[in-house]
Amino acid sequence: MGADQRAELKPPLSFALQGLCAQTGARAGVLVTPHGAVSTPAFLPVATQGAVKALTPQEVADTGARIVLGNAYHLYLRPGTEAIRRAGGLHAFMGWPGPILTDSGGFQVFSLAHLRRVEDAGVRFRSHLDGSEHFLTPERAVQIQEELGADIIMALDECPPHDASPPQLEQAVERTSRWAERCRKAQTRPNQALFGILQGGNDPGLRQRSAAVLLALDFPGYALGGLSLGEPKEVMWATVSQAAVLLPSDRPRYLMGVGSPEDIVEGVARGVDLFDSALPTRVARNGGIYTRQGRHSILNFRFQEEHGPLEPGCRCYTCATFSAAYVRHLFKSRELLAYRLATIHNLRFMAGLVGEVRQAILMGAFPAFREAFLRGYRPADATVRAEQKQRWLAARGRGPLR
Amino acid sequence: MGADQRAELKPPLSFALQGLCAQTGARAGVLVTPHGAVSTPAFLPVATQGAVKALTPQEVADTGARIVLGNAYHLYLRPGTEAIRRAGGLHAFMGWPGPILTDSGGFQVFSLAHLRRVEDAGVRFRSHLDGSEHFLTPERAVQIQEELGADIIMALDECPPHDASPPQLEQAVERTSRWAERCRKAQTRPNQALFGILQGGNDPGLRQRSAAVLLALDFPGYALGGLSLGEPKEVMWATVSQAAVLLPSDRPRYLMGVGSPEDIVEGVARGVDLFDSALPTRVARNGGIYTRQGRHSILNFRFQEEHGPLEPGCRCYTCATFSAAYVRHLFKSRELLAYRLATIHNLRFMAGLVGEVRQAILMGAFPAFREAFLRGYRPADATVRAEQKQRWLAARGRGPLR
Repeated sequence: MGADQRAELKPPLSFALQGLCAQTGARAGVLVTPHGAVSTPAFLPVATQGAVKALTPQEVADTGARIVLGNAYHLYLRPGTEAIRRAGGLHAFMGWPGPILTDSGGFQVFSLAHLRRVEDAGVRFRSHLDGSEHFLTPERAVQIQEELGADIIMALDECPPHDASPPQLEQAVERTSRWAERCRKAQTRPNQALFGILQGGNDPGLRQRSAAVLLALDFPGYALGGLSLGEPKEVMWATVSQAAVLLPSDRPRYLMGVGSPEDIVEGVARGVDLFDSALPTRVARNGGIYTRQGRHSILNFRFQEEHGPLEPGCRCYTCATFSAAYVRHLFKSRELLAYRLATIHNLRFMAGLVGEVRQAILMGAFPAFREAFLRGYRPADATVRAEQKQRWLAARGRGPLR
Repeated sequence: MGADQRAELKPPLSFALQGLCAQTGARAGVLVTPHGAVSTPAFLPVATQGAVKALTPQEVADTGARIVLGNAYHLYLRPGTEAIRRAGGLHAFMGWPGPILTDSGGFQVFSLAHLRRVEDAGVRFRSHLDGSEHFLTPERAVQIQEELGADIIMALDECPPHDASPPQLEQAVERTSRWAERCRKAQTRPNQALFGILQGGNDPGLRQRSAAVLLALDFPGYALGGLSLGEPKEVMWATVSQAAVLLPSDRPRYLMGVGSPEDIVEGVARGVDLFDSALPTRVARNGGIYTRQGRHSILNFRFQEEHGPLEPGCRCYTCATFSAAYVRHLFKSRELLAYRLATIHNLRFMAGLVGEVRQAILMGAFPAFREAFLRGYRPADATVRAEQKQRWLAARGRGPLR
């Protein structure tokens, strides 16, 4: 495509940097999509099945979130992407008028589906819902996401486990590279931005190879995949540090599946702009409440007669309306309202956090903010975290806590 | 108390009739409580544990409901009435600024608690939550409800099963009468209205005896208890017809535990002013959607691509915001938002129904309204209804459907 033709096609996405931390490389920017602008750094609440669990779209927006993540794998299986297309696309179907990002389904196929067989053509798998057989190719992944109609869509990648062998990792990089090119070619809608996904595990050489191929394909944004899969935190951060600088500074960088409040701050410090994770909402449904001091369990006895809010000073709907004692009572009584109120608080916490991070970057004060935040915030214990993750994986698909 | 003293105490409740259907005895009135006025007939959504399941107080009010029912038995066991008193009472604790009615706990002790032993002094039982032993007397039932601080509180009654023997029924009437007198004497707060509860099963003579004693105690309102417990509908309506006319026309009449849309209309036609039931909200959590044509299951295939609202013309938040296809998808995916959206619709349906019933009474058109409504509304099949009730009772305490 020549320069003239390019100019005729209004790009589906623009990204402008507004601030850069000289010391860390942390960035503040703005991402403009066909459904509105998003200030970055941004955290994407996860609307796996077309709803942020327990919330209405208005409630999600009221927390300060401006973009949500939908899940192509789940929506393809149920209610079906054709049905969503006929409903007017995912924005109309779920009643969210703002920007949406969908992932390609790759990660879910590799983590959730049964009996998968990967080959160069694509990946064959059985639905975790009914065992039906499906074949997902790069072209089909793009087609599905075009039917859903998100503003940002993701290339299909092969996502090996964090303890994959070097040959497996290398094969995944090669395949992900070929699939990325096929995804790029398969795009037919001009108003969606397709992001490429880097693989390569924690091998710097493979990450570099993955970046080289994807950069040649000139994606409007890049994601770091294959991370936050159980590897030690310091290993993940070394990879992020190394891989982020391979990416063009004028494109948004997206760290998939991250994460917790402290991980967002650490990711920003390595030049990442976008994050998504089910953690803040899942933690909320289990009674975990984010505060600037760390994560508290609302079931703790000390909240039994705490007539003040979950977190003093918080302006979320929950804290403005109800006492911690009442929220605790709802959790103890397994009232459905409990899950909503905690989710609202945690998403407001995440939106507030990225907002403050952004302000700090714009004011040239990010390193001090980072240090103060991490000094004050006590992360969940690593063992507790690992146990909870196993419990959630085991309970997947059952009850409100999933 | 002389007339002078009476005048000095501002009554906690006033009730004024505004319309009366000459043909049926259906009444339209207004009930004024310390926390606001309620137009009657009124349906009370059930906030068993201090929350209308899945809704915030604002959402409850937005459906048009003006008074809710709290459950003394549940709140006494968890979080404890002392804790609620220290939180500022039930209104403050649950964030509902409008009128509240609490039941005494009698019905739950007789239907839910374990190992209960009734004696004249009171009823001894074990908590269904943790097996702890408790002794509920008429005096304690009033004290608990004074700590909760509802606008309307209920006397402790003995509620025998619908197939109780005549001697059992008679004993329950006698005991309920003595307990009513003790409750009346136990009241210490001037700003709560204590209602008496008639018992007597479906025996007209016993109902008359129960009414005679309670009327002599001059309660500001009267409830019909011991109904809707599994007896045939026509038997229940015969009792309501007979008992309602025994009650003073200047006091509100409350039919406890009723009910479905068609039962509300039938109850109003027999002179009842107030109704409460968990049915509309429980039906909603099971995907049952009230419409003027009857109750539909949202899981029905015909809603799969219904891009219009649950019920055309409905102005509830759910119908104004989401398609039936989306609500169905949320139910199929067991998304927590599903239970809320259906609950909002059904409570709006109930508030709309009693509002229209009231208008019809005021306009002298209630018999025609009743006939048109019942002709158009197809009630749930009696067998289906009975099966569902058994399923719910068995599932009590587990999961979002309870």
